[in-house]
Amino acid sequence: MDALPKIRTLAVMTAGGDAPGMNPCIRAVVRTALHYEMKVLGVMGGFDGLIRGNFIPLGARDVGGILQRGGTILQTARSKTFLEPAAQQEALRQLNAAGVDALVVIGGGGSQRGALALHQRGVPVVGVPASIDNDIYGTDICIGVDTALNTIVDAIDKLRDTASSHNRAFLVETMGHESGYLALQAGIISGAELVLIPEIETSVEAVAQAIQDAYRRGKTHAIIVAAEGARPSVTELASQIDEMEVGFTMRVTILGHIQRGGKPSAFDRLLASRLGTKAVEFLHQGRSGVMVGLSGREVVAVDLAEVAARKRDLPLEYYQMAITLAR
Amino acid sequence: MDALPKIRTLAVMTAGGDAPGMNPCIRAVVRTALHYEMKVLGVMGGFDGLIRGNFIPLGARDVGGILQRGGTILQTARSKTFLEPAAQQEALRQLNAAGVDALVVIGGGGSQRGALALHQRGVPVVGVPASIDNDIYGTDICIGVDTALNTIVDAIDKLRDTASSHNRAFLVETMGHESGYLALQAGIISGAELVLIPEIETSVEAVAQAIQDAYRRGKTHAIIVAAEGARPSVTELASQIDEMEVGFTMRVTILGHIQRGGKPSAFDRLLASRLGTKAVEFLHQGRSGVMVGLSGREVVAVDLAEVAARKRDLPLEYYQMAITLAR
Amino acid sequence: MDALPKIRTLAVMTAGGDAPGMNPCIRAVVRTALHYEMKVLGVMGGFDGLIRGNFIPLGARDVGGILQRGGTILQTARSKTFLEPAAQQEALRQLNAAGVDALVVIGGGGSQRGALALHQRGVPVVGVPASIDNDIYGTDICIGVDTALNTIVDAIDKLRDTASSHNRAFLVETMGHESGYLALQAGIISGAELVLIPEIETSVEAVAQAIQDAYRRGKTHAIIVAAEGARPSVTELASQIDEMEVGFTMRVTILGHIQRGGKPSAFDRLLASRLGTKAVEFLHQGRSGVMVGLSGREVVAVDLAEVAARKRDLPLEYYQMAITLAR
Amino acid sequence: MDALPKIRTLAVMTAGGDAPGMNPCIRAVVRTALHYEMKVLGVMGGFDGLIRGNFIPLGARDVGGILQRGGTILQTARSKTFLEPAAQQEALRQLNAAGVDALVVIGGGGSQRGALALHQRGVPVVGVPASIDNDIYGTDICIGVDTALNTIVDAIDKLRDTASSHNRAFLVETMGHESGYLALQAGIISGAELVLIPEIETSVEAVAQAIQDAYRRGKTHAIIVAAEGARPSVTELASQIDEMEVGFTMRVTILGHIQRGGKPSAFDRLLASRLGTKAVEFLHQGRSGVMVGLSGREVVAVDLAEVAARKRDLPLEYYQMAITLAR
Repeated sequence: MDALPKIRTLAVMTAGGDAPGMNPCIRAVVRTALHYEMKVLGVMGGFDGLIRGNFIPLGARDVGGILQRGGTILQTARSKTFLEPAAQQEALRQLNAAGVDALVVIGGGGSQRGALALHQRGVPVVGVPASIDNDIYGTDICIGVDTALNTIVDAIDKLRDTASSHNRAFLVETMGHESGYLALQAGIISGAELVLIPEIETSVEAVAQAIQDAYRRGKTHAIIVAAEGARPSVTELASQIDEMEVGFTMRVTILGHIQRGGKPSAFDRLLASRLGTKAVEFLHQGRSGVMVGLSGREVVAVDLAEVAARKRDLPLEYYQMAITLAR
Repeated sequence: MDALPKIRTLAVMTAGGDAPGMNPCIRAVVRTALHYEMKVLGVMGGFDGLIRGNFIPLGARDVGGILQRGGTILQTARSKTFLEPAAQQEALRQLNAAGVDALVVIGGGGSQRGALALHQRGVPVVGVPASIDNDIYGTDICIGVDTALNTIVDAIDKLRDTASSHNRAFLVETMGHESGYLALQAGIISGAELVLIPEIETSVEAVAQAIQDAYRRGKTHAIIVAAEGARPSVTELASQIDEMEVGFTMRVTILGHIQRGGKPSAFDRLLASRLGTKAVEFLHQGRSGVMVGLSGREVVAVDLAEVAARKRDLPLEYYQMAITLAR
Repeated sequence: MDALPKIRTLAVMTAGGDAPGMNPCIRAVVRTALHYEMKVLGVMGGFDGLIRGNFIPLGARDVGGILQRGGTILQTARSKTFLEPAAQQEALRQLNAAGVDALVVIGGGGSQRGALALHQRGVPVVGVPASIDNDIYGTDICIGVDTALNTIVDAIDKLRDTASSHNRAFLVETMGHESGYLALQAGIISGAELVLIPEIETSVEAVAQAIQDAYRRGKTHAIIVAAEGARPSVTELASQIDEMEVGFTMRVTILGHIQRGGKPSAFDRLLASRLGTKAVEFLHQGRSGVMVGLSGREVVAVDLAEVAARKRDLPLEYYQMAITLAR
Repeated sequence: MDALPKIRTLAVMTAGGDAPGMNPCIRAVVRTALHYEMKVLGVMGGFDGLIRGNFIPLGARDVGGILQRGGTILQTARSKTFLEPAAQQEALRQLNAAGVDALVVIGGGGSQRGALALHQRGVPVVGVPASIDNDIYGTDICIGVDTALNTIVDAIDKLRDTASSHNRAFLVETMGHESGYLALQAGIISGAELVLIPEIETSVEAVAQAIQDAYRRGKTHAIIVAAEGARPSVTELASQIDEMEVGFTMRVTILGHIQRGGKPSAFDRLLASRLGTKAVEFLHQGRSGVMVGLSGREVVAVDLAEVAARKRDLPLEYYQMAITLAR
């Protein structure tokens, strides 16, 4: 451990899609680094900003008042070029030019792969998982998921009010192009009759049946939650089911980008604070090439190579639970 | 006044699109009626329910715990048949068969016309304006508008988080097929650069210009709020502006039915309680054929005939205010 | 009107207790002033800051992102010295030294009196009413009241959950030393059995009776809302009633300062935006010595002398409504 | 396992202090039991209700619409008598008389001891941990903690608005007579300068110092979070520190019972649904005398005897983290 030189300057960045809780994480990184007497630079605009050498100094007051703010004060972007060696080389040059000794990368799965690339080029780096899709291997949960779930559940609670008043069935689309995690959890906790996810195929008939069953059981409304990537899509379903006799009239709601915003929840603020703190402590202790993750009550380090190589799987027992609890 | 017989049985119904605050209004009607020793019946399912004679008895405890619930426990529907004389005749027969002496109709503009039709057939009736579109003549504001505005503003606050983090411009569609009221108010209080409403034509170029101006003034995001009925539509705008150089990338969010739901706000609970109370008091005093409305600090009665005949106009000074305040 | 010189520099300040909505009001004042090509200075720290000459320049970007923030970025204080002529004289000197041509004062009743004093000394000044107590003459409602009511109602909704689960009666104290406005409105919209306000005396026995009546009517809880200034106090009531047999066990909750905070509601944002805009427009038109106020749908100007001299009265019909609706 | 007879009738109860999430847990118990073709009875009013034989039948529709409701539809109480053998004997008699084959007890530490007593008398019983204090051994987290934390954080966010506007320091008291868990977590995620908990003694001087340090670092406010059971108390602190020169003026807020109420958060709904489902599954599989608990991503069974015997300890690393992050 003492082989590694002391960190005098730490850089911190957010990358990929934004997630609520990135700001409290930045705050934890900055203030823990100051506690260890490091100087801190923020990278503006994700990996593209890193390539452009877009650094700003960050002091204790610069991260005051951001605990409760959604989004990221460092801005972010989905970089298309960072997987190319030339771009990574340029990033390395910028980090050296700015005198950066170590880097914390807060972001989703793609960003962790970017962090791994920099680690392999010799930059001391620790990743922090932030993604509302909860699709990163190596952590029980990512920063942003809890806030997104609360946003979804609030929205569906509102839809249920109007659905009940009009004898309607709502098809609600959540985020999740490749992962059904958000949709599945949201379905259970908002009392959906059925959840449609990319991982499991469902027929139009099965959806129609679930809606009709709800009607027959005396419910005044029915809710179907579908991930963005599920097929058939909510609009296809609505138009086809509207012509069957299911008891309710059909409506579609696409929740969209509101799922990314909002004041971070208590859970996300705590998770972000813990992971951000630990990321700096690991670097301070000479560890690198890892991502911090939640494992039960503990924060652990997982090799970035393992994070990049493995896929998180969906707890499919939830699928049955959603159906059982909707009866 | 003493010509009218004492009301022994009062019926109350909700009609048209649901609006948050209908429940506290039902509660106020029921409990004020009980205070005057009336018996109360609820009509389930709007005018169609009235035609089918779908009445339920309502006591003080039946409306307990509904103050904070969105939607309407009496359910509602947009009736297609009630404008026909035969339907009205049948409603009259059902009211007589159930021994109903007077009726309170809580609903939008169409529902007030339904109330007027019953009044003209001799039913003592008072209307209560509830509509998130705020498009009813005779009241400063309708039940439901305030809650809907809070829902919209909360959603746009969330979008702003993610817009700022990604340098994006959001085109946000609110409800409002024929009226730009909601969109205009929402635009002012959520800091939109521009508001698109059915009442005012706007070109694609003007929208692009407003977005580009925001970018040049150093904003990290831009918000455009558009009513459902405004042209061009948000999706048309997004695809056309995305090909121009405006500084931001474009995203569309259609808020949809969440705007109708949600716990009624403090304002809507108070408005609903006051209007519901006054509706029963007017009937108790022998008045009929009127709608209760808010006028400044007072609750007043407006002839239903006038409500049906006149159109509420939009305060267009708000349009300029939105632009001035967005600078 | 054209006698008055053109305003080149406008100052804006907040004074007295803070109220949610002050920030959107500051934003509206600044941006409307910029629209009229005025330069804007903010006074930091209320009247005491004015006496110290604590000015900061305010541009369009300085008030970006404050629409949704509670409190006031200009800070505020309850000044003890401003009623003295020497203090006013010093304020005048500071305004002149800074080249201020006109002033907007956002605050409560005391602050409007301060504004009047400056007007009488020749400063072109317009007041804007902001106070969660809603105790200012000349406006239907003050900035901050609506947000405070929503905060109170949310809190009482939470208390009702736990009260119902334990068969408890809650005595809830709201702000309001001399005015029962907040308590009365909150009582109606949160389903309180009884409301205690400074303006009306109530005996311990009457409170006990109201709680016992609720128990006998089959309610699972009872809520009593009391303004801070009401007598007997909630703690006195709790200890005395706990020894009587009223069916429920008693609990006390003092809501305290959370009532002043929170993201401004949609209503307060709109009210603050309208009043702030109009304050600057009035000054631009050469008007001074007035407070802007809401009157129905319109924003009007009221003489500050009248505002200072008259007392707003409480709509006591609400008192009976609270009791009727609680049955 | 097959030694145990099949469960035909299952009873479910809530006991001890109420916690948000009890309702979704009841729903999960009822619907999972129905899935296994059990009949379900609800015990009204906790252990005292059990002794009185206060059972109600629960079908699928009886638990419809309670997912989003705080408190418990089965009501609850802190029983003083249930630790006596006679009371337990009577409970046993009532369970037998009602034909109950197994019991689910949702509640805090005391309730789990009650569940153990019944298990020892031969009743097949599974406990579910629900307590906002998070003071139960055997689970990462209890039902209700997450919602309570969100309520606390929302309240402190509001206090910060007004604190910043007035240069004030707030002493905020959270629940927690014997455990500092809530206060500690709340302190970290609301940016408190210092947290006072029963487990760690703090001097008045240390609190004054922390507040003064915040002032000197340029903060516009300071927040101190204290658990109910911490000494010195918030009122003692306020009066003593007000006489020192710390830069800010002091204010006290006691959050009180609102911490128990509120719509269960997404996290609590999911946790409650999972634990409730698993409790029934364990009973169905013939397990008894255990409490279900969250361990990482899994739901596990812990012996009730161990739950009763062991004490959960507080992660004191959080204490330092709160201080580091407040800088």
